Amino acid sequence: MAKNEKLVESITSMDEDFAQWYTDIVKKAGLIEYTSVKGCMVIRPYGYAIWENMQKILDARFKELGHENVCMPMFIPESLLNKEKDHVKGFAPEVAWVTHGGSEKLEERLCVRPTSETLFCEHYANIVHSYRDLPKLYNQWVSVVRWEKTTRPFLRSREFLWQEGHTIHATAEEAIAETEQMLNVYADFCEQSLAMPVIKGKKTESDKFAGAVSTYAIEALMHDGKALQAGTSHYFGDGFAKAFGITYTDQNNRIQIPHQTSWGVTTRLIGAIIMTHGDDNGLVLPPAVAPIQVVIIPVAQHKEGVLEKANELYNTLKAAGIRVKLDDSEQSPGWKYSEYEMKGVPLRIEIGPRDIEENHCVAVERHNRNKTFIPLGELVERVGERLQAVHDGMFEKALENQKRRTYCCRSIDEINKALNEKGDGFVKAMWCGDEECEAKVKELTGAGSRCMPLEQEHIDDKCVCCGKPAKALVVWGKAY
Amino acid sequence: MAKNEKLVESITSMDEDFAQWYTDIVKKAGLIEYTSVKGCMVIRPYGYAIWENMQKILDARFKELGHENVCMPMFIPESLLNKEKDHVKGFAPEVAWVTHGGSEKLEERLCVRPTSETLFCEHYANIVHSYRDLPKLYNQWVSVVRWEKTTRPFLRSREFLWQEGHTIHATAEEAIAETEQMLNVYADFCEQSLAMPVIKGKKTESDKFAGAVSTYAIEALMHDGKALQAGTSHYFGDGFAKAFGITYTDQNNRIQIPHQTSWGVTTRLIGAIIMTHGDDNGLVLPPAVAPIQVVIIPVAQHKEGVLEKANELYNTLKAAGIRVKLDDSEQSPGWKYSEYEMKGVPLRIEIGPRDIEENHCVAVERHNRNKTFIPLGELVERVGERLQAVHDGMFEKALENQKRRTYCCRSIDEINKALNEKGDGFVKAMWCGDEECEAKVKELTGAGSRCMPLEQEHIDDKCVCCGKPAKALVVWGKAY
Repeated sequence: MAKNEKLVESITSMDEDFAQWYTDIVKKAGLIEYTSVKGCMVIRPYGYAIWENMQKILDARFKELGHENVCMPMFIPESLLNKEKDHVKGFAPEVAWVTHGGSEKLEERLCVRPTSETLFCEHYANIVHSYRDLPKLYNQWVSVVRWEKTTRPFLRSREFLWQEGHTIHATAEEAIAETEQMLNVYADFCEQSLAMPVIKGKKTESDKFAGAVSTYAIEALMHDGKALQAGTSHYFGDGFAKAFGITYTDQNNRIQIPHQTSWGVTTRLIGAIIMTHGDDNGLVLPPAVAPIQVVIIPVAQHKEGVLEKANELYNTLKAAGIRVKLDDSEQSPGWKYSEYEMKGVPLRIEIGPRDIEENHCVAVERHNRNKTFIPLGELVERVGERLQAVHDGMFEKALENQKRRTYCCRSIDEINKALNEKGDGFVKAMWCGDEECEAKVKELTGAGSRCMPLEQEHIDDKCVCCGKPAKALVVWGKAY
Repeated sequence: MAKNEKLVESITSMDEDFAQWYTDIVKKAGLIEYTSVKGCMVIRPYGYAIWENMQKILDARFKELGHENVCMPMFIPESLLNKEKDHVKGFAPEVAWVTHGGSEKLEERLCVRPTSETLFCEHYANIVHSYRDLPKLYNQWVSVVRWEKTTRPFLRSREFLWQEGHTIHATAEEAIAETEQMLNVYADFCEQSLAMPVIKGKKTESDKFAGAVSTYAIEALMHDGKALQAGTSHYFGDGFAKAFGITYTDQNNRIQIPHQTSWGVTTRLIGAIIMTHGDDNGLVLPPAVAPIQVVIIPVAQHKEGVLEKANELYNTLKAAGIRVKLDDSEQSPGWKYSEYEMKGVPLRIEIGPRDIEENHCVAVERHNRNKTFIPLGELVERVGERLQAVHDGMFEKALENQKRRTYCCRSIDEINKALNEKGDGFVKAMWCGDEECEAKVKELTGAGSRCMPLEQEHIDDKCVCCGKPAKALVVWGKAY
């Protein structure tokens, strides 16, 4: 067990240093490796497989809803980026500029896409002419670049992977319905596939996407009480269409201006999983996206019949479509337990000579170390049940944490008291709608507005800051 | 039928202007759209779906063979690109340089990856230490950028999509076996999924990948008799490992240098499909990668029962896992026939009142317009047979074309005569191994060396150029 203990020892505990705990996990679970390109990383096979599983689930859902994948260029000419004024103001300060092709200086510099609204708009201007061409429901899976000063793996990197949906519709109603639909798709995905509870809400004016009429977001609460924006969905109105000259002829032969949306989630969701479910033994992965859902570890594997039986279990689970791994390497079972706990494998199956005698195996759940004996004849069914139980248990635990760390406050003092006494978390408090109050709450408490939840509650009549009549409940928090 | 004829009329015929015919197809079949970024394009949903189908097949095959997907940064610092001398010489003249992040000038400029050997090497130097860490069998699906002067959609664009496999092995033998294995994977994919016959061969020294010990390629012959390199697989020896300081400790605790490979195919394969199978009516897609495998077109759809029956066929085929579309729009059947011929849908099913009476439907194959009556009770089975027949027929036709345009030559005169009289094609001729002769053949005939086929034949004792003893059979041709 010496090796085992050594491995566990080598992670910083969450309470001691949360940031270091996070960094330890991304490295030691084999998710990423640093490179000589500052702010960029290698996503290693185990990390990339999580993203592939996310992609598979989301892509299928997008397509069910009628979306099609396309691929835009990675470069945007400066003049194209400049076409929508708010948009360029938001993004120009943080883009990477290509100025030379080979040894020649370019006539016009190109930025590496920080997001692709401008490219989609140029394309829509080319292909949308009649009401018959609408809607276009497009998406792409690519990487984008934003020249951030400070970076952290998955949470904020100069290049990151994402999907960006871009749709264009005949009417505002349709576009707004699309924006809301995609927010719900993201929320359902977080809850049903990532076991991560989220709050759906609308961003305040000051926190909108550059160029949007309204921005919706899902917000999740991390172990350290900080909020993480896990996905966004924007309604653009007809602002981009006007800037890019996109029009269509309606059924009555009149020229109309279409309405647009965009929506995206990124590899940041991997960071969200780490900080929602991880513990001092390492990563804890939700079964739906875990690259390995079940790891089989033979005990006393040199004894007759153990490896044969372990292989039998492996083949049975694999045939049932479960992502399973058998580790029959020479390391001790104890070392392997630690290793796959570090890697966050949701379910561990132990099988040794005594288990074989008793015709069962032992299933240990990663998130709570619950032990179950599973009769070998019921393996597939019972493993399926356990994986569902793991998902449910992880979700409950995370929801519990979120509730415990959500504070209803009626004054700045109450906010500060709650955050000081109980630690960072979501603060629910009323707001008058004034941007000055929004800024002041942040200044006085450290907690910025995260969103105005779609499910509004009435906590108080007055703004938590100025005491004037309240217009909306806002969820506040310190954010990643 | 006026609309129908108008649509057909609007494609340039292949014989009249091959390049224009190609451009017409990529636009009119809805594969791409141009952008304001020179040399970059939008891959539209119909084009991207072809790539997605290719990815699905290849990715599954790579994984079966033990490869794992990763994701490297898109940027390479100039100093990293410079580490392997041949490599930088080959690529530096055609890379895009990022010089600024936001408003700040970068300390070191970064190129947008033209290929990722240097990044993989840096990573391997970090993670490979012991023989236990080998092999690493990595792949990534990304886009790369090469600053080409003249560009054509899919064939040569400044940004293109590809997969790049990068593997590292303990021994030269293992790495060479990997190189050959992946060449075979590509050849099988082209033949079994794209219905495209290819020649597997080794590149001559002058035509190798920058930094490789040896480069293998598959070469396909297009309709116009030009050769197209459809995939490459490189053996690097230990040159990159030495340049990047990658070493490992073997079983006997000795420091060793590992051996590497890389291999890739690109969206160029879509161009290859167009020019291998397309005709004057448009695209012809191989069933394995066609976004729509079967289109159902109701005839006299206003008559009672027609649309119901068409929907029934649709549901039956869809449930059987066939990618099927029912076009019940208001256009005439004739217009629809042209439209889906343009889009290259492998099989068209027509169903009208008389067919329903006779309890059959009509299946028309895109590549030869063969008509078959299919009893409705045998729909799934017979459609499956037809799709297989389409694949086989397309492959035969392409192989026929390749054979007809392959010339065995024993002198420069014979080469020129064959190319002049019979048109461009593959020329099989012997070579002494001298680079001067290789260059001279190209100069005198226009046909460069494509590869030395793995299946060598003995056509003559002497070099086709200098008459000295021949060392190898070379396939020569004009190339894309």
